[in-house]
Amino acid sequence: MSLNYIIREIKEKQPNIKSVFFVGCGASKSDLYPAKYFFEGNARHLRTSLYTANEFNYATPVSVDETSIVITCSLGGTTPETVTATAKAKELGAHVIAVTHVEDSALTKDADYVVYHGWEANYAAKMEKMTMVLGLAVEILNEYEGYEHYNKMQDGFAKIYNLIESSVATVLPQAKAFADSYKDEPVIYAMSSGATHEVAYAFSICLLMEMQWINSGSFHDGEFFHGPFEIVDKGVPFLLLMNDGRTRAMDSRALEFLNRFDAKTTVVDAKDFGLGSVIAKEVVDYFNPMLITGVIRVYAEQLAIARNHPLTKRRYMWKLEY
Amino acid sequence: MSLNYIIREIKEKQPNIKSVFFVGCGASKSDLYPAKYFFEGNARHLRTSLYTANEFNYATPVSVDETSIVITCSLGGTTPETVTATAKAKELGAHVIAVTHVEDSALTKDADYVVYHGWEANYAAKMEKMTMVLGLAVEILNEYEGYEHYNKMQDGFAKIYNLIESSVATVLPQAKAFADSYKDEPVIYAMSSGATHEVAYAFSICLLMEMQWINSGSFHDGEFFHGPFEIVDKGVPFLLLMNDGRTRAMDSRALEFLNRFDAKTTVVDAKDFGLGSVIAKEVVDYFNPMLITGVIRVYAEQLAIARNHPLTKRRYMWKLEY
Repeated sequence: MSLNYIIREIKEKQPNIKSVFFVGCGASKSDLYPAKYFFEGNARHLRTSLYTANEFNYATPVSVDETSIVITCSLGGTTPETVTATAKAKELGAHVIAVTHVEDSALTKDADYVVYHGWEANYAAKMEKMTMVLGLAVEILNEYEGYEHYNKMQDGFAKIYNLIESSVATVLPQAKAFADSYKDEPVIYAMSSGATHEVAYAFSICLLMEMQWINSGSFHDGEFFHGPFEIVDKGVPFLLLMNDGRTRAMDSRALEFLNRFDAKTTVVDAKDFGLGSVIAKEVVDYFNPMLITGVIRVYAEQLAIARNHPLTKRRYMWKLEY
Repeated sequence: MSLNYIIREIKEKQPNIKSVFFVGCGASKSDLYPAKYFFEGNARHLRTSLYTANEFNYATPVSVDETSIVITCSLGGTTPETVTATAKAKELGAHVIAVTHVEDSALTKDADYVVYHGWEANYAAKMEKMTMVLGLAVEILNEYEGYEHYNKMQDGFAKIYNLIESSVATVLPQAKAFADSYKDEPVIYAMSSGATHEVAYAFSICLLMEMQWINSGSFHDGEFFHGPFEIVDKGVPFLLLMNDGRTRAMDSRALEFLNRFDAKTTVVDAKDFGLGSVIAKEVVDYFNPMLITGVIRVYAEQLAIARNHPLTKRRYMWKLEY
């Protein structure tokens, strides 16, 4: 079922949708962020929120009802908090769309609609989750309010996967250099802005803390100058994710500061991969996160090799109940 | 001018408010979070968003217009990004309320209304900023949609400042113990849930990174189990801020995990100060952040003493242009 068909069918059932909720945990929460960011910036009437699943479960917003669409997301479809959130949303009468990779997983049980995304095939397939959720947001906005750049966005969806694949194919040297240089660092910071804000967050909490047991913090680079920048000194390690689009000025300002005080800085810049020459400028902001997430996955893989610490190594996950 | 008077006057001018935006930077952004959290959970029609100021400036949401209220916040009233956001909101026709401590500061220039909060007098005065912004959110919701617990909330506002003062008066021993125990740690994590989520964020980026130059990260404790918890090992230092209210189960689950694997854990728990016996249970969630922020300020002060590193010491702020 196409994304467009799902939203049109919901609209036939409920022409008066007021709220769109995005609900997930960890990387699957941050993968929802570009859609929420797009919606927050472009909707004139519809409300939107992004929740970590147990926050949604324990302090459920009063507006979750038959006038809301709830989009839940879990790669394997088994994340207990997100499965519970899906059931709760359904029970409250919301129109529930589950996004997952695994057919008939627990997440799909209470959903009205299920969107399946790829994973194993290649880097582009791993970015389907984030991209398809953005696609849902675009369809909702266009159906309920109209969206003037709808066609440019569809053109972007048609092109982004190839750009991700061609980009990741070029970054091995930079990724190896990053891995060699950062492999013994006790702490690494990550930051970005715009739609890419939670890509920095996910790299910090999942790829560094979870999968490499490296200490880390992350923040919006507009916030950098209001606290975190005082940690900067010669050699303090940062990963800065730079956007092509309206928030680039914030990324550039952070870079200038990091360079001025000799922080140890690695930049991953969407402009280097030609994002803006492939995607129309009116919508380019929203395609940074999937391109950059694809690229920095290679960085994480090389870090894992350099540290002899596989990305699948865990202390607790998959090993015990918690 | 009372908070109630401001909102009633806006309503006379514009009965059709659709969106409420909160805009600030760093600690003044996190001080807006409880109000945004309250609004997101309790509004049925009104939209709400929280932006770091330059994100608002560079990627201004299309819905900022005469149907929106924009609340901007800066302690000294001079934060350039937030001053710019105030002017931009005004220019777009929004109803702008500036919240600041400093009379006639730059922030007040383009605002339709100014709310002044205390600071120097005591710990309670330092919590006025966060509390009065929550008060504005309650007034907006009550005027435009009605809010069934309005009176309980007002009762809370009448009592919270005394509770903050009486609580901070008791915590010196615990704060000194925290300071002694954590003073040489290379990294400290902070986490919480519910309305207190960004209190952990502010403690991490402002009190630890900015004012103590200690490495730090923060996250929602519902997210803890989806990445960050793999960093836990014997002795890894955490500060856990526990709420009295609906999201306490998340805080408790995080505590159990930290204890199970011998993390070095300091708990600041609103229940220990009797929050729930002073504030009605229907609204208690929203009064955790000001109580806990007051208490952990004492912890930060003691950490500064133990480390011989004053909270006012800076490398960059107040010293150079950036």
